[in-house]
Formats: sequence, C-alpha cells, structure tokens
Amino acid sequence: MKFTVNQKELLNNLLIVNKAVSNKNIQPLLSGIYLETKDDNKLIIRGTDMELGIESEIGALVDESGKIVLPSKYFVEIVRKLPMVDLELSTEENNQIKIVYGSSEIKLNYYDGNEYPSIHDFVGECILKIKGDDLVNAISLSQVVVSTDMTRPIFTGILLEIKNDKLNFVSSDTHRLCYTYVENIEKNVDKWESIVPAKSLKEVAYIIHEDEEIEIHITSNRILFKSRNIKVTSRLIEGKFVNYEQVIPKEFSTEINIIKKSLLDSLERAFVLTRDEIKSKLNTVKFNIKEKILIISSRASEVGDIYEEIPIYLQGNEIELGFNGKYLIEILRNIDGEEISINLNEPQSPGIIKGTQGNEKFIYLILPVRLQ
Amino acid sequence: MKFTVNQKELLNNLLIVNKAVSNKNIQPLLSGIYLETKDDNKLIIRGTDMELGIESEIGALVDESGKIVLPSKYFVEIVRKLPMVDLELSTEENNQIKIVYGSSEIKLNYYDGNEYPSIHDFVGECILKIKGDDLVNAISLSQVVVSTDMTRPIFTGILLEIKNDKLNFVSSDTHRLCYTYVENIEKNVDKWESIVPAKSLKEVAYIIHEDEEIEIHITSNRILFKSRNIKVTSRLIEGKFVNYEQVIPKEFSTEINIIKKSLLDSLERAFVLTRDEIKSKLNTVKFNIKEKILIISSRASEVGDIYEEIPIYLQGNEIELGFNGKYLIEILRNIDGEEISINLNEPQSPGIIKGTQGNEKFIYLILPVRLQ
Repeated sequence: MKFTVNQKELLNNLLIVNKAVSNKNIQPLLSGIYLETKDDNKLIIRGTDMELGIESEIGALVDESGKIVLPSKYFVEIVRKLPMVDLELSTEENNQIKIVYGSSEIKLNYYDGNEYPSIHDFVGECILKIKGDDLVNAISLSQVVVSTDMTRPIFTGILLEIKNDKLNFVSSDTHRLCYTYVENIEKNVDKWESIVPAKSLKEVAYIIHEDEEIEIHITSNRILFKSRNIKVTSRLIEGKFVNYEQVIPKEFSTEINIIKKSLLDSLERAFVLTRDEIKSKLNTVKFNIKEKILIISSRASEVGDIYEEIPIYLQGNEIELGFNGKYLIEILRNIDGEEISINLNEPQSPGIIKGTQGNEKFIYLILPVRLQ
Repeated sequence: MKFTVNQKELLNNLLIVNKAVSNKNIQPLLSGIYLETKDDNKLIIRGTDMELGIESEIGALVDESGKIVLPSKYFVEIVRKLPMVDLELSTEENNQIKIVYGSSEIKLNYYDGNEYPSIHDFVGECILKIKGDDLVNAISLSQVVVSTDMTRPIFTGILLEIKNDKLNFVSSDTHRLCYTYVENIEKNVDKWESIVPAKSLKEVAYIIHEDEEIEIHITSNRILFKSRNIKVTSRLIEGKFVNYEQVIPKEFSTEINIIKKSLLDSLERAFVLTRDEIKSKLNTVKFNIKEKILIISSRASEVGDIYEEIPIYLQGNEIELGFNGKYLIEILRNIDGEEISINLNEPQSPGIIKGTQGNEKFIYLILPVRLQ
C-alpha cells in the first residue's frame, strides 16, 4: 500500500469517520480506522463500533493498492499535528506504515485490513431519496424528546415511517412526543416502519451535506445513508413504536399564540429557581392563562419566587395548569420561528406546541404536571 | 437597601467576583455574594472563599444604603438571564430582595450582610506599584511550572521577591524552574519575599486591567492587588522558597538557537507517540544536537517511531540527551517570540531555555531525563 494525500483533506475526513470509533473498544480493529486504496486514485476511510459505521472517500495519488487498520487514537492525533503538506504513506515489511513529510517521518504499527467488518454498504429492501436539509431538520426536531434510558430501547430511537406518501419522524421520552414529516420523497415501497437509534441519527445530521440528495437504504436490521462521498450506516432498534396517532389530541378548548423568546426567557429564569427542588424534581412552573396575558410563576421557598407577565393572543377558555419547565425549555430552544401556538384542554390532559403560519410541519406533545 | 443598576454591568462584575466564590462552601456566607450600597451612588460587590477575595465597585442609583449576601448560585444565573434593562432591587420585610424588570419580578431570600468577612482591603507593610501588563506577563510566564501537589505547598506558589531594585518572580514544580523579573517599580522597601498561591495569581492576571497601574499591598499573611475599581486579595503561603540563584547555571558548553514553532510542532507529534508509555511516564524524547541540525526521535514500540530533523544554529559542543517532552511542550507553548535559545552542559545537568534578542527577561530551567 502506497499513496500520497493532502494532510488537511485526510484530517477532515478522519475526524468524520472517527465519530463511529470508540477508543475504549477492546477489539483493536474496532478501535482502529480502516484505510483502503484502490487503483482508481481513491482512498476509502472507514470506522465503526458495529452500531454506527461511517465511510468517507477522498482523492489520493495511489501507487499501490492495499488495506490496513491503524489505531485511531494515535493516527488521528498524529495527522492533526502534521504540517499542511502532501503526506506520503507506504507500508513496510514489519507491519509498520511510514508517513513521510519533508525530511521527517513517523512510523506507526498497523493491523491487517482483511479482517475488518464489512457493514458499510448494502442494498435495502426499502430505498428512498430525501433532500439533505429536510432530513437534518426532521432529525433535529425529533432529537430533543428522546430518552436515554436503555432499559426501554424504543424510546431511545426515532421512528421512521412511510405512510400516506409521507416520511414521518416520531420520537418520545414518555413525557413528551414529537411528530414531524417530510413530503415528496422518492421511494420504492408504500409502507415501512423502522426505529433508528437517535444517537446514530444525530451523527447523520452532523455529517451529511445538507445541500445534497441523500439515498436511504433500509433492511430489517440496518439503515444506510449515502451521499456523494460519505456513507453512514446504523443498526436498527427492534420493537414496535407506540401508536402516536391515538395519543395526539385533535381538538382543543384553549389555544394561545405567544412570542417564543418571551416564553423561553421567562421559563429559563424560573428554572434557575426550581432546578434544585429536591421534593419533586418536576421543575414545576405554573401557567395562568388569561384573556390577554400568560402569568408564569413558581414557588421554590428555599430560594425565592418569580412572577412574570407575558402578552398572548387567546382563543377559547382561560386555564391554570403546571408544566415541567425544563421539558418546555428544551422544546422551545429547538424550534425555529418567532411565534408558537400552545393548544390545551384540561389541566391534566396533554397539550401540544406547534409553530404558526409557514412553520406548521411539526407537533410537540407535552404532559402537564399537577400543581401542588 | 434599594438601588437601580444596569443588568449588563451588574452581570459582568458578578462574573468577576464570583471567581472567588465556591458554591460548594458549606458556610452560606462564603457561597454567597456580598452587595453593599452607600450614599455615594456606588454598589460594592464582594466574593471570597477566605483564600482569594475579589471586590468590584460599580455605579448604581442608590435610594437606600444597606448590605446583604445573596446565594451566588442563584443570583448570578438569574441576573445572566434577565433582560438587558435597568434593574430595580429593593429589600423587603421577610428577608427577601425584590428584583423588578418591566412588569415582572423575582424575589430571592438573602442573608444579613453584617456578618460577612472583611478581608478585602488593608494597608501593607510592603507597598509597590507595577504596570498591569508587566504583572500579567510575569504571572503568565511563572504559572506554567507550578506544582499542584498540596503536600509541598511552597511549590504551588510563586515567589515574589524584591531584591537589587527588581521585583523577581520565581516558580518551580521541582522538575522545572522559571525566573523572570520586572524593573523600575515604585516600592517602599528594599527587600521583601512572599510566596503567593499560583491559583490566586492566575485569577489576578485574568481580572486586572493590563493598561492600569496596579498597587500591591503585602503583609505577613495576605497580599492585595488594587486597580481602579477592582481589588483582589489572597492569603500567602508560609515557608521559605528554594535558593533559586544557586540552581541556575551561569555557563554552558552547548548553546543552540532554534525556531520555536519547529521544535514545538515536532515535540507535539512525538508526544502523541509517547504519552501512553506505561513504563516510565517520562514521555522521553531524544535530542541529538549536531553541527546544523537537531534530530528529535522517540521510540514507543507499541505504537510507532518518530524521526525529525530541525535546522539549528550551534555554538559549542555536539551533545545527545533526553527530555520529558510534555514539560518542554508546556514551556514552549507559553513563550512569545519566534526564536529561542537552549543552553546545556552535560547530558545529566540542568539546561535552560530563554528567549533571544529583545525577549530575554525570563529563564526556564529544565532537568534532562536519562536515555534508556
């Protein structure tokens, strides 16, 4: 194996691929980065922890094809600290790869690349195409209400569902639920359901190019996202997602429109006072919805009190109820747009938060908490 | 107590004072921030953990003088999240202070300010004046070779010494020593020695205004740095510092000049290979000094090898010796200037690193390590 590659381009792509590599993995191959050169002047870089897999393809001047695995911990840091020049890499007899830069050189011990797992490419039963920015947006909306409790795995994932010509994204941490969708997608099936680990989708959203079209391949146990030079694959989560359509109310007796920033700022101040409450851990904030104002208040006797008035536009009934301030803050921080709509029924029934005109492609469902 | 203050100015000064406050302090007063208003339209803000003390004075519209202590954990975060407007603060009957902003308000429980420790101002036996940027520069040079081992307290501090019309700064972690000085200072004594905790000086360097003249007051157990509106005080460390003059060699058989960045980059690459060495923890890097080049090499068999050539200007003897790469990296990262000079004698004798023309006001002494 012998090739020349630009330091900066190599580093940028190593940093991407490295997101799938765990340095703590006891299997040396899985704590390593796979490099493969072919005669077509391409360098393929791969990393995986078997859950997530990332592949990147970059241009390189290939003198000799081959495949090796290098310890990511050392290789990535070395490349990061090399000068911004063309690097000549060549394998030597004693299982070392030599990296030459100017009159200096570093030799690193490598592993044989033939044993490296081949999970990075496959053809799906379900194949669809989606615009990169639509995918990133849907992931980013869903991400915020995902659970990290591994004892109930389906809530650590995001449901990807093809139904009624839409690609639906649904997630829930059991206190909150997010529903969003993408329309006008190319697809080879009419119905499909998979639960994808939210952690994997977070990396997908971070890595893929928003201005490209992404091809998605899904089998019964893996999903693959392909863009021009990057492939990200993930295992799926087994199980059946909750029936989200049944949970989301369709009619409401109270609807308010409110400036998102005013509500968010107020909740963040209230949260400072309630975040250390030992009694409930509910960070309870009281919403008192009146004709033209929302009164936000909390009482955390050891620390102090807050009382804020925020102007609103109300349709329907006045109502008084409690929310977990932290849960609301996380949702509001994650929503674009100046104004939001909050729709409610009884003080103990789930409410929904959505955008207003032109920003209506998502719904967050949130459960109120009892006021003490 | 009643006053009006600008949110942004209050926040900026709270963040400074808060550096002396430990939220974990079990004494409520010491985990709090002291506020005092006087009739001269000044708000005085203080924080201390008894080791370090910081006071800041800002303008405020004072309607009623008074002194209280607020829990820093809540007060600072609340002020951070308040709108950028004038805030009206007034104490109420039930030991609460009311913060009014627009039509909203927050009430925080406060402690009586009369019990708060008064360590923030005093007149020193030794008084001197020094330019802010000289002080910051000397602290920043000394800081890097300080120990964190609290069992030998003097090495966790920096010696401030008045001698021969200079203010000397000396620090050591027993592997390395730094000597630097400031000339032309105003002072009321000819000789003085104090050891100041490096942690305190780090905050001083961060907080004081570099373009101001700083007045320093020292007693037998505390030091005070005074600038226009900020005072920082620290306890001193008891004990006698090492006789640094005896330790620093005056003559050398090898002197090289080298571009600092070339050496630093090379050492950083070598460090990636040696940082996990279990055997020695010495991060040993071999220096082979020849007529026109320095050859840097390391051998860390489990990971790989490095060999680098760096051009140098040599006066005196060729020599081969070992250094702890990490110790050198920390020193080099901390030095300004393009070129440095390294002066050596035997492979087991201490060497020194200093700047070249126009950058010669400091010396780092460093002990070589044995090559295995």
